[in-house]
Amino acid sequence: MKILDIREASVAISSDISNAYISFAEMTVSAVAVITDVVRDGRSVIGYGFNSNGRYAQSGIIRDRLIPRLRRCKAEALLNDDGSNFDPFKAWDAMMANEKPGGHGERSVAVGVLDMAFWDLVAKIENKPLYRLLADRFRGGAAQPEVYVYAAGGYYYPGKELTALWDEMKRYLDLGYDTVKMKIGGAPLADDLKRIEAVLALLPSGRALAVDANGRFDLATALAYAAALEPYGLKWYEEPGDPLDFDLNREVAAASATPIATGENLFSMQDARNLIRYGGMKPERDFLQMDPALSYGLVEYLRTTDMLVENGWSTRRCVPHGGHQFALHIAAGLGLGGNESYPGVFEPFGGFADDIPVQAGKVRASEAPGIGIETKAELMKVYERLSG
Amino acid sequence: MKILDIREASVAISSDISNAYISFAEMTVSAVAVITDVVRDGRSVIGYGFNSNGRYAQSGIIRDRLIPRLRRCKAEALLNDDGSNFDPFKAWDAMMANEKPGGHGERSVAVGVLDMAFWDLVAKIENKPLYRLLADRFRGGAAQPEVYVYAAGGYYYPGKELTALWDEMKRYLDLGYDTVKMKIGGAPLADDLKRIEAVLALLPSGRALAVDANGRFDLATALAYAAALEPYGLKWYEEPGDPLDFDLNREVAAASATPIATGENLFSMQDARNLIRYGGMKPERDFLQMDPALSYGLVEYLRTTDMLVENGWSTRRCVPHGGHQFALHIAAGLGLGGNESYPGVFEPFGGFADDIPVQAGKVRASEAPGIGIETKAELMKVYERLSG
Repeated sequence: MKILDIREASVAISSDISNAYISFAEMTVSAVAVITDVVRDGRSVIGYGFNSNGRYAQSGIIRDRLIPRLRRCKAEALLNDDGSNFDPFKAWDAMMANEKPGGHGERSVAVGVLDMAFWDLVAKIENKPLYRLLADRFRGGAAQPEVYVYAAGGYYYPGKELTALWDEMKRYLDLGYDTVKMKIGGAPLADDLKRIEAVLALLPSGRALAVDANGRFDLATALAYAAALEPYGLKWYEEPGDPLDFDLNREVAAASATPIATGENLFSMQDARNLIRYGGMKPERDFLQMDPALSYGLVEYLRTTDMLVENGWSTRRCVPHGGHQFALHIAAGLGLGGNESYPGVFEPFGGFADDIPVQAGKVRASEAPGIGIETKAELMKVYERLSG
Repeated sequence: MKILDIREASVAISSDISNAYISFAEMTVSAVAVITDVVRDGRSVIGYGFNSNGRYAQSGIIRDRLIPRLRRCKAEALLNDDGSNFDPFKAWDAMMANEKPGGHGERSVAVGVLDMAFWDLVAKIENKPLYRLLADRFRGGAAQPEVYVYAAGGYYYPGKELTALWDEMKRYLDLGYDTVKMKIGGAPLADDLKRIEAVLALLPSGRALAVDANGRFDLATALAYAAALEPYGLKWYEEPGDPLDFDLNREVAAASATPIATGENLFSMQDARNLIRYGGMKPERDFLQMDPALSYGLVEYLRTTDMLVENGWSTRRCVPHGGHQFALHIAAGLGLGGNESYPGVFEPFGGFADDIPVQAGKVRASEAPGIGIETKAELMKVYERLSG
């Protein structure tokens, strides 16, 4: 059992790019294929991975540092003890050889891309969907194949503000979502409150709406929004300030009646641990959004969930950023509280299986072996070009 | 006044690689040249930058993200208000457009490479060494052209342990250094103490020796070393644990009689601020080693030093990591406490002007315009290939 080739390509994200709060126009994604000599159902088994949105293709780090280290490994050095499958933990250690500690940024994305491909590969070789493999390995078989998802969007529409926002949100509800998230902080507070009230008019209660400041507020602004949001009883108030300003987060969490959600820009167990230690997050109320694909993959995410449990948190408080199938399977297999979704943005990488609709705010993980790349026709075109 | 071209190349580090604690064998460095239409002394002015050691070439981020953003700027958008020179702050903002907050890793290195080139350029256009420009702009002209430097090394030599270590340290003293630094943590504590005692036999006092654990100890080991180091009265005890484990650092700093030094793996103002907030570092005793070249360059380092002053620290406590001329000029121009040096490692990027020796533990910044790349013949060969 061995790896025959590892290929990487940088792919543009092309759909709905004008809608996004930060421009997706120049954003790119690394797609990798780990091609093996294992055959299942008459076909070579290939593991697929990609990076999550908000960061960029990491071709340089993947090609110049990570793939050469994997290539230099003897075949058995990447296998589990009985040689029956690949071992993502050994692949992780091989990729991180000669890397210094700290400074967790783009490298974490590059490792995450390849880690995803290794987990996809391992589940395919076991002929299981990844969520089932994870539940069997780490939770005594307890899976929750149906996962709570919410629709993230709620962009600004200069000139046609409320009607376009309304149309967007109606589209999400028609798609089967029952929780939506909208941007705040791109307009003055009074205007944002009008936008929030407009969206709430479509929803059964404030609990069906989350708001996202994308890390842009200073302390005074963050506190002003916290006070102003209180009457609406919202689902959560996301990333009020800089993701590493844990003092700000602690003050806002203490003052806010609305639950706080943050973590999408913390890319290692150590960074997440600092949020838990210093950020004033409340385990009975708040939400953690670390994205395994941006954060050294599932090998590191397991360290993060261990750290959370040691600190008195339930993994039910985790609702990963990103809106991709990797996090969906992790949520289903490890019993997380849910997963983000970006309908129509970040295609073809984002979103879930083509034939599994969102229903009543939940979506099932695919039953295809691996993470379900094969259940998305447009995404498979990317990988067919890469591995063909 | 405009930029004609920006070029980047990934360059291997070739000298003395077998000596390093982490292998430099596969390490690469990004070198950039910012070529302008400005002429001084009959020649085009070109700004040069490179990344500091310990991380790798960032060609992908530099070529795919940063250089295209700079190219898209109108010429005047990168100039100061009167159009008489380039403005590194505007270049910084242009490079970071569409980048999300947090996750400060490799991106910080990529920006640092280009930021260095912009400061080199700006100083060359003003026909001043960078340290003089910085002193004039930020310190009312007060410069300290002679900077305290120490020789970092003290590697492990399996099989010929103490004699080879002795030879290495004698070489540093012969070169003019009066403080040396050695690795610890690669051998059992008792063996490390023998190594320390062997080196101390060459030195006038413990204050001439610093020790570096490279972030590898858990809390118990870090505390055991802190206790064992106490009798020697050493200069400092560096990076006892993971650079982001501020709780560990706080406990070790409280227990240690030896000053603590850390920061080389914190790559943004926000990360450095968390060390100051949570790490238990003592402003009257300890040392901060953030490396501007790895940390979004001097534009960000100025934010970091502002943050330090706001928190009651003197910039005299800063002794940057890296051993390069950029940090040397920053130390000389901003009045830092010193600068690292890696004699013989990381060539041709590391080290100072060819014709300025270290004397009595200090070295002068070069008087050549810019950061002094032109004063290093081997380094200029790299840039002549790149910009020729």
